[in-house]
Amino acid sequence: MREIFDAELHHIGDGLVEMSRLVESAVTRAGTALLEADYQLAQDVIASDHEIDKLERALDERCVHLIAQQAPVATDLRIVISALRISATLERMGDLARHVAEVARGRYPALAVAPTARETFEKMHDAAVHVAGRTTELLQTRDVELAAEIQQDDDLIDALHQDTFAAMLAPGWNGTPQETIDVTLLARYYERFGDHAVSVARRITFLVTGDFDAEHSPSHLEV
Amino acid sequence: MREIFDAELHHIGDGLVEMSRLVESAVTRAGTALLEADYQLAQDVIASDHEIDKLERALDERCVHLIAQQAPVATDLRIVISALRISATLERMGDLARHVAEVARGRYPALAVAPTARETFEKMHDAAVHVAGRTTELLQTRDVELAAEIQQDDDLIDALHQDTFAAMLAPGWNGTPQETIDVTLLARYYERFGDHAVSVARRITFLVTGDFDAEHSPSHLEV
Repeated sequence: MREIFDAELHHIGDGLVEMSRLVESAVTRAGTALLEADYQLAQDVIASDHEIDKLERALDERCVHLIAQQAPVATDLRIVISALRISATLERMGDLARHVAEVARGRYPALAVAPTARETFEKMHDAAVHVAGRTTELLQTRDVELAAEIQQDDDLIDALHQDTFAAMLAPGWNGTPQETIDVTLLARYYERFGDHAVSVARRITFLVTGDFDAEHSPSHLEV
Repeated sequence: MREIFDAELHHIGDGLVEMSRLVESAVTRAGTALLEADYQLAQDVIASDHEIDKLERALDERCVHLIAQQAPVATDLRIVISALRISATLERMGDLARHVAEVARGRYPALAVAPTARETFEKMHDAAVHVAGRTTELLQTRDVELAAEIQQDDDLIDALHQDTFAAMLAPGWNGTPQETIDVTLLARYYERFGDHAVSVARRITFLVTGDFDAEHSPSHLEV
């Protein structure tokens, strides 16, 4: 029984890594589509989001079957429940990448990001790609040191999110209402993306260290 | 064993109803605080959100214990897993109500909503209060007819969400950048709130009817 459980858990772990790789690819392409007004790339991100959704469903089924067939308790059960939550979070990260791509597609052939905010979104994109890569690596290696890096990247994204507000509220802001709306929503999507990565990092930290508080710390686990 | 399981499930159901009542109260007070620039009311919503979070944690623990101790399979297991997901969704609805209250508090003593958008947000508030009330009722009664009403309310919220964009992009819009930002984010919070209610309604429908597709329909289950 134990061997079956461990083998199944291993498969579930691989599935999470695969989901995270797709999220990484989606957020990388979405940001590029946004910054370069690349219609086809935006379209690709939007069209491929269903693959992430499909993986989530398959993983969830696998987790529920594993619980039903092996009746895990204590830490084993918490690991499977955490996997369910991580897959839901990764699925949402995929949605957010898709939302970025939708804004890029909606403004084509124009650039969605107002010139004044471009530099901030270049940094936001780099941080999001970095955070997504670290999340994949953390899921693969369970190296909890990476969780601290993810937290730092998220702090940077939060600071950049604040920068977008500061830019839009400064006297020099001459964006159109459409640009103000787009910058507001895009910054929010990136901010949420970072928060979700932190939530994945906390769950992994909890699984590795058993520190339950790390998983449920109140900040960042919202919406 | 069966009696213990059913009794525990009953407790968990009561917990979800209690969470939903708190969410209903939060979104009602947050919208009033927003439309009347009521600082104290906004403050109350923000301060009481932790009660919803606490209830979620307690319910989650209860669900995990129930799985560990009773090793449910098939439908029983799916019910408990659904309860976990519903509690996470209700917690996020509470966060969104808090976000509305945070915008109201941040603009006090001014009104956050630009005069041109006021009527739309009055309707948005009414629809959100209605959807929250129906969600509580659905959790109490398991009457799946209510799910259709929740879907209709959410359709209305989506239409109002589109109205806010139309208003901000019309030539007559003379809102400040701050007002444009606030309307954009507030409309997004309400839109997400409605989507989450639909997701709760789908899960309940799934539990009552066994129609798995109802739970996993792709629209509305995002971010």
